[in-house]
Amino acid sequence: MSDKDNHKDLRRLRELLAEISDLNAAAALMHWDQQTYMPEGGVGLRSEQLATVSRLAHERLVSPELGELLEQLDGTFDPSSEEAALVRVARRDHLQAAKLPSRLVAETARAASEAEPVWVSARADSDWEAFAPHLERLLELRREAAEHLGYEEHPYDALLDLYEPGARKSRLEGLFEELKAGILPLLHRIAPDGVAEDRSAPLVGDYDERVQEEFGRAVLTDLGYDWSRGRQDRVVHAFCIDLGGPQDVRITTRFDPRRVDTALFTSMHEAGHAMYEQGVSPDYARSPLAGGVSMGIHESQSRLWENLVGRSRAFWEHYYPKLQEAFPGSPLGKTDLETFYRAVNEVRPSTIRIDADELTYNLHVLLRFELEVAMIEGRLAVSEIPEAWEAKMEEYLGVRPKNAGEGPLQDIHWADGLFGYFPSYTVGNVLSAQFFEAAVGARPEIPDEIRHGDFGPLRGWLTENVYRHGRRYEPEELVERASGRPLEAAPYLRYLREKFGALYAG
Amino acid sequence: MSDKDNHKDLRRLRELLAEISDLNAAAALMHWDQQTYMPEGGVGLRSEQLATVSRLAHERLVSPELGELLEQLDGTFDPSSEEAALVRVARRDHLQAAKLPSRLVAETARAASEAEPVWVSARADSDWEAFAPHLERLLELRREAAEHLGYEEHPYDALLDLYEPGARKSRLEGLFEELKAGILPLLHRIAPDGVAEDRSAPLVGDYDERVQEEFGRAVLTDLGYDWSRGRQDRVVHAFCIDLGGPQDVRITTRFDPRRVDTALFTSMHEAGHAMYEQGVSPDYARSPLAGGVSMGIHESQSRLWENLVGRSRAFWEHYYPKLQEAFPGSPLGKTDLETFYRAVNEVRPSTIRIDADELTYNLHVLLRFELEVAMIEGRLAVSEIPEAWEAKMEEYLGVRPKNAGEGPLQDIHWADGLFGYFPSYTVGNVLSAQFFEAAVGARPEIPDEIRHGDFGPLRGWLTENVYRHGRRYEPEELVERASGRPLEAAPYLRYLREKFGALYAG
Repeated sequence: MSDKDNHKDLRRLRELLAEISDLNAAAALMHWDQQTYMPEGGVGLRSEQLATVSRLAHERLVSPELGELLEQLDGTFDPSSEEAALVRVARRDHLQAAKLPSRLVAETARAASEAEPVWVSARADSDWEAFAPHLERLLELRREAAEHLGYEEHPYDALLDLYEPGARKSRLEGLFEELKAGILPLLHRIAPDGVAEDRSAPLVGDYDERVQEEFGRAVLTDLGYDWSRGRQDRVVHAFCIDLGGPQDVRITTRFDPRRVDTALFTSMHEAGHAMYEQGVSPDYARSPLAGGVSMGIHESQSRLWENLVGRSRAFWEHYYPKLQEAFPGSPLGKTDLETFYRAVNEVRPSTIRIDADELTYNLHVLLRFELEVAMIEGRLAVSEIPEAWEAKMEEYLGVRPKNAGEGPLQDIHWADGLFGYFPSYTVGNVLSAQFFEAAVGARPEIPDEIRHGDFGPLRGWLTENVYRHGRRYEPEELVERASGRPLEAAPYLRYLREKFGALYAG
Repeated sequence: MSDKDNHKDLRRLRELLAEISDLNAAAALMHWDQQTYMPEGGVGLRSEQLATVSRLAHERLVSPELGELLEQLDGTFDPSSEEAALVRVARRDHLQAAKLPSRLVAETARAASEAEPVWVSARADSDWEAFAPHLERLLELRREAAEHLGYEEHPYDALLDLYEPGARKSRLEGLFEELKAGILPLLHRIAPDGVAEDRSAPLVGDYDERVQEEFGRAVLTDLGYDWSRGRQDRVVHAFCIDLGGPQDVRITTRFDPRRVDTALFTSMHEAGHAMYEQGVSPDYARSPLAGGVSMGIHESQSRLWENLVGRSRAFWEHYYPKLQEAFPGSPLGKTDLETFYRAVNEVRPSTIRIDADELTYNLHVLLRFELEVAMIEGRLAVSEIPEAWEAKMEEYLGVRPKNAGEGPLQDIHWADGLFGYFPSYTVGNVLSAQFFEAAVGARPEIPDEIRHGDFGPLRGWLTENVYRHGRRYEPEELVERASGRPLEAAPYLRYLREKFGALYAG
């Protein structure tokens, strides 16, 4: 192929990819609007429109024209070039979509949309049996999907790969073993038999939502969330969404007027996701190189800003006096910094994942990972899940769900057909510490800068080493480039031991 | 063709049309978002995305598949059926789009996007010569478009037809003659030599925007704007937009804290547009039968609710005490109902169309219509426009623009390549009175009901006779069906004479 043909093909490839990105952005905007401002009467109409626009994007992604162009261009560029990365990432997306028969995609979508309302009422009624047939169906469809997607070692790898490119069940097992070995002794000391001291009192009170919002906005501004390329709106379930490129990345949050911490940490979490997307090279807009490279690396950024920054003592040395000032007459007036710091880092084993603290969170994920692998392997029947759940919950956390509603029915993921997704939460937690340690290694002043409310250098390091690359490097390569090491549990365990060892000393 | 084939073709037609509607709705949402909430940094990205989505909708509209289906189905249904209407309207949209070479569409879009910023600065500098070459180019392109679109009597008809299906220059000339003959004597009595009494004093003051907003929302609720299928947001230039069907029709408004009337009448105007779209049969969602049948009939509804209802004495008998209560300490406290009613109906010849009162508005439109026809015919060179404008302004309104900025540069329409659009404003004004008279003829209690803040019966008549039909009938047929008469100036002139005769008696 001549250089000229190559150039022409690349131009056409970029056009096709931009078209797909634009349709996805339209769908993203429809989704954002639906969660924020859409009038209730528009629900039915909007779901038809979303289905059309998503279908058109999907048709383009699996189109033979795109497939042929990618075959033509594969291997024609210097492997280290952006062009090669573009072809590789687009090819990955294309093949992943093209491998699944459209019949299977449609059946899975239908099964999930049938399962979701059943899950909602089954959860409310703690009725596992009502949900079980839907889960069986979805499991069957996802096992079929795994066969179509293909894998080298284990069918679960095919599903993992959708969220964590290159991840393997076998390696996750090793990671979880290390985490378990590091976390359980610490947890058992802090919460023997699953019972821990209640430290949350100062967080509970009457905290005006508007003041919370204003305080949160000021914090996000300091962190470096760029409001000229984003905005924050109120929703029931918080999320971050990009609308086609780093030029428009929006966050949402929810407020609890009885808790001073909910909205703030939710906002910092979403801002972490958003600063990652805003930090991607603007050249990658309208291309598959925009956005985060894996769910785990995305989550590493939300957790880094929420936990390693937002729940650090250094952070609160700067912000606690401001928070006290913002809420005169609240319990904070009688609460010293140390007590507040302990409150926002309270360890309390509970049955609910989304309420979990930093120490117990990964045990919730481990439990789900183990059950999912057993389900995919056919070693665990859907009817046996509640019992297996309870046993593991007891073993890892020392607590038992009262019923299936606060047991295996608590999360929406399985009702959406998402198997292989949960591990990304733990990959995110682990990487948050690995990246933070690397940043501090490169610039030891970072903790002190946080203590003065200066987040620029930390954000700068993350932008340089992680954000700007978008999806240019494979997740593993990005982790290596940024931290000098492969994904490993050690930095995260060091962080947990040091922090919670001190918080629960003596 | 067998009935079965026909049925299959119709189903496929509906699918294609729904897809086009969904893409147009995505574009509409992008536009709405851009005007309301989009962060400034997203402008460039959004315009690329809008261009893609609009192009995909256009490609589908002009597609041979759609064209062939429409040919197949043309004439196969009972002419009075909804199916026949669907085919007719879709065919009209398809042919109108397909007749224009894509080269011409692209050139016109480019010329307009180049002209717009030049127009902005030319208007600020009153620099006609800077804008003139762009206008010449756009005029040339639109004349070419008229030839492609085709016409029976006059090239201007081809452009008119884009906004006012079936309208003819020759008939508009007759309408304008009647209006001129009716309005000018009235105006010359009220404002000899273009000078009229200033009655607006009570409207000017310090009117809190939040109170204005709350008052306006309460009024719109009373009128019958359905908030469960719509919403109102703040923008710089107010508009109404439907997002694919009557299930989601949004309005926007702007506030002027120094005027009590601006936001309210703007809101009522947009709510008039919106109630029309909300009133369309829900069966027409995601099809070309949804929405308004012509710009003029659309405008008739915004003007009916803004002027015939909102500027009526009956309306203010109900709302004025509430308005006074909402703004204690404002000039309204010392203003009686009659004075307020005279203020919101003040006649003041001015050079600016969008500030024009009910009496002078159509003279602004007449002037533009006459100039446009002369331009299209080649009788008037672009360089001669400012002089012609001034002469007509003097003749009709007794005022002279100080410069081109408040003369022919005041409107954006020509910079957007919109020729043949202005007459719709007058068609709307004329029809607002014709429909209102017909409604009151059918139900004489309507004015009294308005006096008690009860708009249900009026809205009910409009829904039954106009709104629910969407684009099912040709504009002319709809007017006939609703009012029993063709479009005519008489009801509007009766309305103006009666209202302004009394307001300016003695």
